[in-house]
Amino acid sequence: MKRERVFRVFLDGLRPGPVRVTGDAAHHLVQVLRCRPGQTVIAFDGEGLEAEGTVTETGPGHASLELGEPRPGSGEAALTVTVAVALLKGDKLRDVVRQGTELGAAAFRPFISRHADVRQLSPNRLGRLRRVAQEAARQSGRAVVPPVHEAVTTAELTDTLRGQTVIYADPLAEQTLAAAVPGTDGEVTVLTGPEGGFSEGEISLFQESGFQGVWLGTRILRAETAPPALLSALLLPEAL
Amino acid sequence: MKRERVFRVFLDGLRPGPVRVTGDAAHHLVQVLRCRPGQTVIAFDGEGLEAEGTVTETGPGHASLELGEPRPGSGEAALTVTVAVALLKGDKLRDVVRQGTELGAAAFRPFISRHADVRQLSPNRLGRLRRVAQEAARQSGRAVVPPVHEAVTTAELTDTLRGQTVIYADPLAEQTLAAAVPGTDGEVTVLTGPEGGFSEGEISLFQESGFQGVWLGTRILRAETAPPALLSALLLPEAL
Repeated sequence: MKRERVFRVFLDGLRPGPVRVTGDAAHHLVQVLRCRPGQTVIAFDGEGLEAEGTVTETGPGHASLELGEPRPGSGEAALTVTVAVALLKGDKLRDVVRQGTELGAAAFRPFISRHADVRQLSPNRLGRLRRVAQEAARQSGRAVVPPVHEAVTTAELTDTLRGQTVIYADPLAEQTLAAAVPGTDGEVTVLTGPEGGFSEGEISLFQESGFQGVWLGTRILRAETAPPALLSALLLPEAL
Repeated sequence: MKRERVFRVFLDGLRPGPVRVTGDAAHHLVQVLRCRPGQTVIAFDGEGLEAEGTVTETGPGHASLELGEPRPGSGEAALTVTVAVALLKGDKLRDVVRQGTELGAAAFRPFISRHADVRQLSPNRLGRLRRVAQEAARQSGRAVVPPVHEAVTTAELTDTLRGQTVIYADPLAEQTLAAAVPGTDGEVTVLTGPEGGFSEGEISLFQESGFQGVWLGTRILRAETAPPALLSALLLPEAL
């Protein structure tokens, strides 16, 4: 049976009944997705609510919808993936949060790794990262915005995660990602390091805490590539 | 049995015998990877050759190696993934080539999609993309640089790929990526669209050509996120 094509559109403030859409949302719906009257859509507010609706009219730069009752949104992956990412230089953390949100990360836990050049996450920068997550959730059609936590040390992070399913890339590991995370639901945290890699002390700490090293192949991934790559590898093959 | 940890180091011009490494390569080897005398390394030239060697001495900012005979390199994925990517605005194509090379793309085939704002790939821009692929191959430790082909139209691309295994993201598709590409070797091309998505005519052309639509989940990926995400999903789970 064919899934019905359902388009998602971001609307600020959902309420049942007729609504006129303009601006970027209308452009996306009418020009990009080529939505026409009669089409079923899901409107989402980027804060956890969705409403099913029907397109009643379209024109250049606008569309009219008839919306149903807003309800808590879905669109979240069946496998909950938290990204614990070391502080990175420049705008790299912003890119990780944007791409990670788009790909379905459930939350971000920045941490201060031993070999990281960046030693703190200022309130301003944290605020910016949270706005990036909000904007990326809207753009990607997610009903919920993944939280970006305050930065902690590697030791604090490890304490928080002990006993949970945690994986990190390790060229010495024997098992693959598919072997380490065989399920399509549950929860997993992916731990990724800074530009300079993890220290030996950190790797020992991870091992003592029961975290699982995984082998990702012979190619060396940059610090900012690893988080979106791991999310993609976990969520995309089965469209979770 | 534990795999031996083998570090990869980029060297311009490989020859057997003793070699002194300085600069970035030495920093990476000594400071980042913390290589010590006795360690086995693989030196690669980014042009297809590799040489196995041993670290004989290390110090701040330098390392000495004893290299064996150079030979054609491996380090390439068992599953050959070509990325056919629509021309994108600004620097996005550069990011796709950089991340794609890092993640193991075998080649890039840019094409001019119906809804793309960018209608040509100038010789200058193509030259820059090829340099980005070269640099990313070096950084990620690949022995070969994936070629970046000249841009063609969607129709020309489709003619070239007819009869091959080709997948593209389609919210109407029923099968998942894992179902469409079940193998861990062979060849596949992933087709990704421009910011405005594929046109209906293009989707029809793909279907007539036997290309397979795959469903990636409910989240909407940006044009520049889709190529690295598909590469990650195909190559990382089994560390191909």
